[in-house]
Amino acid sequence: MIRVSILGGSGYTGGELLRLLSFHPQVEIHQVTSQSHLGEYVHQVHPNLRKVNSLKFSDPGQLEPVDLLFLAVPHGEAQKKMDDFARLAPKVIDLSADFRLRDPVLYEKWYGQTHASPQWLSRFVYGLPEINREAIQQADYISGVGCNATASILALLPIMQAGIMDDSSPVTIEIKVGSSEGGASINDGSHHPERSGVIRTFSAFGHRHTAEVIQAFGIQKLWLTMTAVDLVRGALATAHLQLKSGIVMKDLWKAYRAVTQENPFLRLVNEKRGVYRVPEPKVLAGSNYADIGFAYDQENNHLVSICAIDNLMKGASGTAVQCMNLMMGWDEMAGLDFPGLHPV
Amino acid sequence: MIRVSILGGSGYTGGELLRLLSFHPQVEIHQVTSQSHLGEYVHQVHPNLRKVNSLKFSDPGQLEPVDLLFLAVPHGEAQKKMDDFARLAPKVIDLSADFRLRDPVLYEKWYGQTHASPQWLSRFVYGLPEINREAIQQADYISGVGCNATASILALLPIMQAGIMDDSSPVTIEIKVGSSEGGASINDGSHHPERSGVIRTFSAFGHRHTAEVIQAFGIQKLWLTMTAVDLVRGALATAHLQLKSGIVMKDLWKAYRAVTQENPFLRLVNEKRGVYRVPEPKVLAGSNYADIGFAYDQENNHLVSICAIDNLMKGASGTAVQCMNLMMGWDEMAGLDFPGLHPV
Amino acid sequence: MIRVSILGGSGYTGGELLRLLSFHPQVEIHQVTSQSHLGEYVHQVHPNLRKVNSLKFSDPGQLEPVDLLFLAVPHGEAQKKMDDFARLAPKVIDLSADFRLRDPVLYEKWYGQTHASPQWLSRFVYGLPEINREAIQQADYISGVGCNATASILALLPIMQAGIMDDSSPVTIEIKVGSSEGGASINDGSHHPERSGVIRTFSAFGHRHTAEVIQAFGIQKLWLTMTAVDLVRGALATAHLQLKSGIVMKDLWKAYRAVTQENPFLRLVNEKRGVYRVPEPKVLAGSNYADIGFAYDQENNHLVSICAIDNLMKGASGTAVQCMNLMMGWDEMAGLDFPGLHPV
Amino acid sequence: MIRVSILGGSGYTGGELLRLLSFHPQVEIHQVTSQSHLGEYVHQVHPNLRKVNSLKFSDPGQLEPVDLLFLAVPHGEAQKKMDDFARLAPKVIDLSADFRLRDPVLYEKWYGQTHASPQWLSRFVYGLPEINREAIQQADYISGVGCNATASILALLPIMQAGIMDDSSPVTIEIKVGSSEGGASINDGSHHPERSGVIRTFSAFGHRHTAEVIQAFGIQKLWLTMTAVDLVRGALATAHLQLKSGIVMKDLWKAYRAVTQENPFLRLVNEKRGVYRVPEPKVLAGSNYADIGFAYDQENNHLVSICAIDNLMKGASGTAVQCMNLMMGWDEMAGLDFPGLHPV
Repeated sequence: MIRVSILGGSGYTGGELLRLLSFHPQVEIHQVTSQSHLGEYVHQVHPNLRKVNSLKFSDPGQLEPVDLLFLAVPHGEAQKKMDDFARLAPKVIDLSADFRLRDPVLYEKWYGQTHASPQWLSRFVYGLPEINREAIQQADYISGVGCNATASILALLPIMQAGIMDDSSPVTIEIKVGSSEGGASINDGSHHPERSGVIRTFSAFGHRHTAEVIQAFGIQKLWLTMTAVDLVRGALATAHLQLKSGIVMKDLWKAYRAVTQENPFLRLVNEKRGVYRVPEPKVLAGSNYADIGFAYDQENNHLVSICAIDNLMKGASGTAVQCMNLMMGWDEMAGLDFPGLHPV
Repeated sequence: MIRVSILGGSGYTGGELLRLLSFHPQVEIHQVTSQSHLGEYVHQVHPNLRKVNSLKFSDPGQLEPVDLLFLAVPHGEAQKKMDDFARLAPKVIDLSADFRLRDPVLYEKWYGQTHASPQWLSRFVYGLPEINREAIQQADYISGVGCNATASILALLPIMQAGIMDDSSPVTIEIKVGSSEGGASINDGSHHPERSGVIRTFSAFGHRHTAEVIQAFGIQKLWLTMTAVDLVRGALATAHLQLKSGIVMKDLWKAYRAVTQENPFLRLVNEKRGVYRVPEPKVLAGSNYADIGFAYDQENNHLVSICAIDNLMKGASGTAVQCMNLMMGWDEMAGLDFPGLHPV
Repeated sequence: MIRVSILGGSGYTGGELLRLLSFHPQVEIHQVTSQSHLGEYVHQVHPNLRKVNSLKFSDPGQLEPVDLLFLAVPHGEAQKKMDDFARLAPKVIDLSADFRLRDPVLYEKWYGQTHASPQWLSRFVYGLPEINREAIQQADYISGVGCNATASILALLPIMQAGIMDDSSPVTIEIKVGSSEGGASINDGSHHPERSGVIRTFSAFGHRHTAEVIQAFGIQKLWLTMTAVDLVRGALATAHLQLKSGIVMKDLWKAYRAVTQENPFLRLVNEKRGVYRVPEPKVLAGSNYADIGFAYDQENNHLVSICAIDNLMKGASGTAVQCMNLMMGWDEMAGLDFPGLHPV
Repeated sequence: MIRVSILGGSGYTGGELLRLLSFHPQVEIHQVTSQSHLGEYVHQVHPNLRKVNSLKFSDPGQLEPVDLLFLAVPHGEAQKKMDDFARLAPKVIDLSADFRLRDPVLYEKWYGQTHASPQWLSRFVYGLPEINREAIQQADYISGVGCNATASILALLPIMQAGIMDDSSPVTIEIKVGSSEGGASINDGSHHPERSGVIRTFSAFGHRHTAEVIQAFGIQKLWLTMTAVDLVRGALATAHLQLKSGIVMKDLWKAYRAVTQENPFLRLVNEKRGVYRVPEPKVLAGSNYADIGFAYDQENNHLVSICAIDNLMKGASGTAVQCMNLMMGWDEMAGLDFPGLHPV
């Protein structure tokens, strides 16, 4: 049993951490902070937690020492006070984008500003167990993942691990996302009459999460395109790329089965019949599973690889808890057993 | 051909006026104002009007004289400057709540403040043609209607006109509404992740539109309950009440057919088969029709009467244009012929 | 640890039972049947269960003896073979409507047909713990609940338990429901282009679930009105009624607090600020909680009482598992700890 | 004034033809057929047409001679009886896929069956005015367009017309579509609880509409990927391709402006601020406009070109009416002036 606190609990990733940690068998939540909701019960912001968690939001300036600290504050905040946080807790998991990139030059290129604590970058491990499990098990400082990066990396993982991509192939990844990806802050575009029913390609290329995919696999020609659609939770990445010549379907089944067998939260979805033949995010809402699938135009060596996730779970808070489990030496799936709903 | 201007064109009712008047055969739009979008093309705010209307938003302080002025500004604004507006145009149609109630005491009771221009109240006609057609034809000053009041009044109209309600009956009207009813201003509750998929009873009783229904029919025991549901445009009023003893189905068919024959925008929907047996707002999006229907528990004299509208059309801008047509002696349906879509 | 089977696992209530029982600490699922999906993995129909439950659907004609049998077959099926089922299992929970009404005359009135096994009606206990907890604890045969009946009964429970309703008051309950209430069978009205965005009052009065509310409380003048809206899971009941004279707000707080304190799955939602001030079904998806709230027009003794549930959980499978827990003497909340999501 | 009939009026494209032609100033609808709804009023199937169109569905076997015949029957039907249809009307517009491809070999490759009337293929003109206007003006037989093909062709049109694509570039087009694209026939996947909230890549490559894009532009390496999302009407095509070296932003603005100036229903959407910066289908529901836009990664010569349409309008019935206007020498926009709604 360890004591953890959450800095920034009124946003969506903070809320999911609260939900998950409220039921985690080895964790006690010590503090959860919010400046704007100071003194309110957490269930006043996150109504699903009524009768489940009786905590009140406390002052972010009054953090007390704990065993592990989750940072769920806006991008740019954690890097300013990382020394302070490290004094409060021997282990820190930061869900923001601040420590995802190891290279300060890459950070500056994609985020348009100099990193405030470049010396901390190399001390953080990028917290995606499917590509970094062993390093995470050894780490004290874990960086959360970008949700679109997660879906993209996992869509590519079977191919990259099997080494069957044509290295000269450009990779185009189209990502369709729900509205929760934008966070809890309101804006003109998130107003329901404007956001309902959209198919809105809000980022044709140049999205910051691209850098995480580049860092993971070193792909040179890579474009991520982001399109907002009408659901709240969920992201689907559809990757288009060329395979090496000679690859046949059997190689692909082998490659995909390998990663889904090695990773408890990966599932292969590629059915011949029924309604659910391909990965779909809606049935993953609240779950930490990532569903992957593929279709292969063998005549042209063209592969379409698909990954569906809940952006707040596998794409943020779920993976953060999975990292905590690994850091602590616990069952990787502890506290993460909700499988999603059908229908939903 | 007359010249009209719209004060307040960046909101939802202003936008609908722009759409309707852009195609109205007897109207030329002279000015449309917006302080916050001053100088922008109207299509930058209302993207459906691109290539349709090339106007730019002008300064609300620089209104020029016209034949007819539409006021589409927030509640409370029109009553402060009504003398100025009357000098600019011989005919004024105000879509706000400022001049809907004839009695300043009633206004103060429901709006919680003293009316700024009580002398103007009696000069305005409540602009719902289905209950005020002749007065509107003679009027120079027309008040717009509340969308929930419109749906409620039209649900009750067949019964009240036929005089078959039990006068001692309490009337409970449950209204289900889309998100556009809240207007174009953003707030925490309209943020898509919070508003999507809701069934949210945001006003159990005491909604201001109740006063318009009371004024129309003099009902003593009347409760309107407002529940937000997941669509953008549309309102459905379901009224529950008791009829006088002895009323049979035939009387009801007669009462409902009478109002739908007398009023070009009312339609009776009461089918025995098919998907669309009852009034539904979704097929009315963009249309000025109001669909009404009923079900009758004859054993208990209990009537359920239903009215569906597009809250921005029949519940606001469509009815305003219909009133203009009547004031000008034109075809009541001019410029209002879009019937809605199926499917949608 | 007991062995249970589910007769009828490909529908929505069967699917929810599968999800819940897959994680229940004291239950082993022995068989789950489906004629139409015989031999398929359960995850081919319920994609959320992939990697969670490796069962295949078995033949409904090959049921084997178990400790407890859940019946999740269409209405009318269970009553024909109840003697057979009783031979297979000492305890039976039937989720259909077959054994909800104790009186065969009432059954015939509301269901339009003679009951096939009237002798079984008195042996079943209506399985809503909030009104029948002790009887359930003693029972071997439990009837599931109607989802709309559940929402209605729980909306009325605080008032009926406190005895503060005006007995002569008619009760009008407006229920707004999601599409999963119609079950897994397709029809013209459930086709997405026709069902999306609806506000469709498909039953103005006379819905069969009305009988369950009458049976629970003996109300004489009761109308349930059902309106389909755009979400998948969820039902909100809004009850309108008159209280005895002299009742004040303090009495209501006391009445509502009493039932939410006595019942682990009831929560009172009546906030002054924030987005979530009233009960809303969306945050309950997947959860067994029922959220209740109220608004009171004290001047007129008019009460609006509200209950939100997930129709597949508290309104069906969740309550069935809760009943199993009570029958077996286990923790009432065992296996039912998922609290719902925010945002969703 | 001409007389037209519609063979197959109960489906979605037939319903849209009915709506459009009911208001077309130069057309009288003579017959509209439906076997399954024979004798019913058209408004019983298309509720938006109540009080608008008083026709009843007639027998498809009793078609009478008219000036122009629209065929809105399922794929495969028109090719079997084309000689009969040609005897009934001097002009025919077929909305199915039967006569879209000029080459019977191409037809067989993509549709998997031999064409029943290959001699008719060369007599039909592919009815997309933006690439075939002059031929359409001279034609008596017009083939309708595939909705996804339309969105794809129009997304590529500015580039192909300007001749600035790198000819060796593979083209990947991701198309996101609403549920009406599947037509009015119900199936397990269109059941609302399963279809609501989906992001479902139902065709990774090999969709039949691909053939129309190949025919239009002769692209060799072309993949269309279809993903169903949660709305009813609308399709968004996002095309990814490489431009010739040396192309700069100014060239692109010129190319896109050229096609939007030459074609009355094309609009360029590429704004720097506001909510609606890129093409979005939701504001096009009911409209015949196609909105196009682009983003350009100049450093890598990588272009993302976007086109939004209403699949039932510009992608089917709207374009069919546009073709009729051109065939008859009328104003190309006659009867097609509804601009869509905002908000919606």
